[in-house]
Order: sequence, then C-alpha cells, then structure tokens
Amino acid sequence: MADESLFDFLHMEIVSHIYKEQQSGKEEMDNKDRAVCVSVLESMGFRVGQGLIERLTRDSPSFKDELDVMKFVCKDFWTKVFRRQVDNLRTNHQGTYVLQDNTFSLLTQLSNGKQYLDQAPKYLAFSCGIVRGALSNLGLDSVVTAEVSVMPSCKFQVVVQKL
Amino acid sequence: MADESLFDFLHMEIVSHIYKEQQSGKEEMDNKDRAVCVSVLESMGFRVGQGLIERLTRDSPSFKDELDVMKFVCKDFWTKVFRRQVDNLRTNHQGTYVLQDNTFSLLTQLSNGKQYLDQAPKYLAFSCGIVRGALSNLGLDSVVTAEVSVMPSCKFQVVVQKL
Repeated sequence: MADESLFDFLHMEIVSHIYKEQQSGKEEMDNKDRAVCVSVLESMGFRVGQGLIERLTRDSPSFKDELDVMKFVCKDFWTKVFRRQVDNLRTNHQGTYVLQDNTFSLLTQLSNGKQYLDQAPKYLAFSCGIVRGALSNLGLDSVVTAEVSVMPSCKFQVVVQKL
Repeated sequence: MADESLFDFLHMEIVSHIYKEQQSGKEEMDNKDRAVCVSVLESMGFRVGQGLIERLTRDSPSFKDELDVMKFVCKDFWTKVFRRQVDNLRTNHQGTYVLQDNTFSLLTQLSNGKQYLDQAPKYLAFSCGIVRGALSNLGLDSVVTAEVSVMPSCKFQVVVQKL
C-alpha cells in the first residue's frame, strides 16, 4: 500500500515543483511555459521507462513483432507500473495504437468525473514518457500522447515512427 | 519488483534534475547551491512523509510516548517506505535518536563501499525529509540528518525539538 502511495506522492511533488519553478515570479503561465514543464516531465518519464523495461524484460523471450511488444506493454509492463492491465488495446495495424485505461492510477487520487479536467495533462506527461521510454528500449521509436475525457479514465495514443 | 524500482528511478531523476537546475550555467556549485538543492529535496520528502504516515496510521492505536512513536517509525514505517526495518535504534532518552540501516534501499543501487561516498548526501536529503514529515504528523517536531561512512549503510540522527 504505502509503496504505491510513495510513488504517487513523489510524482505529485515533482509535478508541482516543476510547474512552480517554471512559473517563478510570473502571474500566469503561457503555453510555452506549459510546454517546457510537459517536456521536462516527459523526459524524466522517458529515462524511468527505459530503466524499468530493462529490468522487466531481463528474463523475457524476445518479441516476434510490434503487436507482440505492445501486448507486453499493455499487460506486464502496465501491471508493474500502473498496477493494472490496460482495459482495451486498439490498432489500425499501421503503427497507431490506442491504449485505454479506465481507472488510470495517477488520476484516481485526483478526481472522479469532469471537475479538474484541465489539470489532467500535468499528471500525464510523466506517464507518456514512461511508455515512450519503455518502447524505445524495445526498439520502437514512438510518439506518445494522452487524452482524458472523464477522469480517471485515460487514453494513450502511441504512434510508432517508421524509420 | 518494478514497483520499487519505479520509486528508485524516479527518485534518481529528481535528484539529478534539481542539481542540474541549480547548477544551470555555472561551472561548479558552491556550498550555498548545494544547500538549496538539499533543502528543496528535503521539503519534497517532508510532504511525502506527511502523506504516507497519514495513511499508515489510519487504523493504528495512538502512541503512548515518544519512544513508542520512534519504534513505529523504525518498524512499520521503515518497512513500507524503505522495504526493511531499521537495524538498530539507539537513544540518549533525552530526545536524540540514532536509527541505523545497514542496507539503506536508496543507496544500494549506488555503491557498495567507500567509492562515491561524496555523492551520498544528495541521495539522503529526500529521505531525511520523509522521516521528518512522518514525525511531524505524529506530533514530534524534529531535526533529521543522515550520515554515511560506508555505503550502503546509513545512520539517521533524529533530534526531537522540545517546545
């Protein structure tokens, strides 16, 4: 229990620290400031995701294709990091994947419904980075974005970049 | 497993982020810069510690005295946060406590021995804050410092402030 909340609390602190340091002095943040925060959080997540997947796949057999990698991320990786499996994985079979988590762990503490919806992106940047970092170490370059319409449900879109 | 590493990796990222942002541009950090970093990390830890202890003690009976609180921190709290009990607790019965952890979880990844000893304080500030935050919510104002002579063993000194 506390192990999980340890991460959740630390994550909250970091988000708040990074937004505060970017805002320092200014009355309001503009879009550029917000983009900087998201990018800092995303790259932290990226490196954490890389580290985690390295440990997790130490004893795994290799993956046979892209979809196989995505399935691993939705099941094993998601369970370890976000404490549950992804509820739904969809793909257009052309490198775009939508991962839907109906009870996303980093949002459950925050709100249940539409209130504070505008705050959600803050709390998703790090997670997008984690997913991108994990995929990167599994050999897939990708762009990961997240979208929330009702908390705590969340859709991650992964677009694999073809070389 | 990954749940734990999740916290460890995130903690590493934060330490590195905060030191980088403080150093920005300068060739070397002076003692004042280092003190700022330690203080930022310590206050993050403080708030995390407050949050954690609130959850952990929700169903606990109240404590009969200061030593009782300290024992709870060394056993239950330490196990949840740092994955093991404190190895040794000593006190002068005048408000000073020394908590010794011979395999401190946030140092085990770092080094085993005397190499990198100068880097240890970076990785202890957050933990000192966690302990101070927990004690504060249990009604004890304190000063918490940490000392390492050989990694990954660590001694935390808690000095309870009498009102």
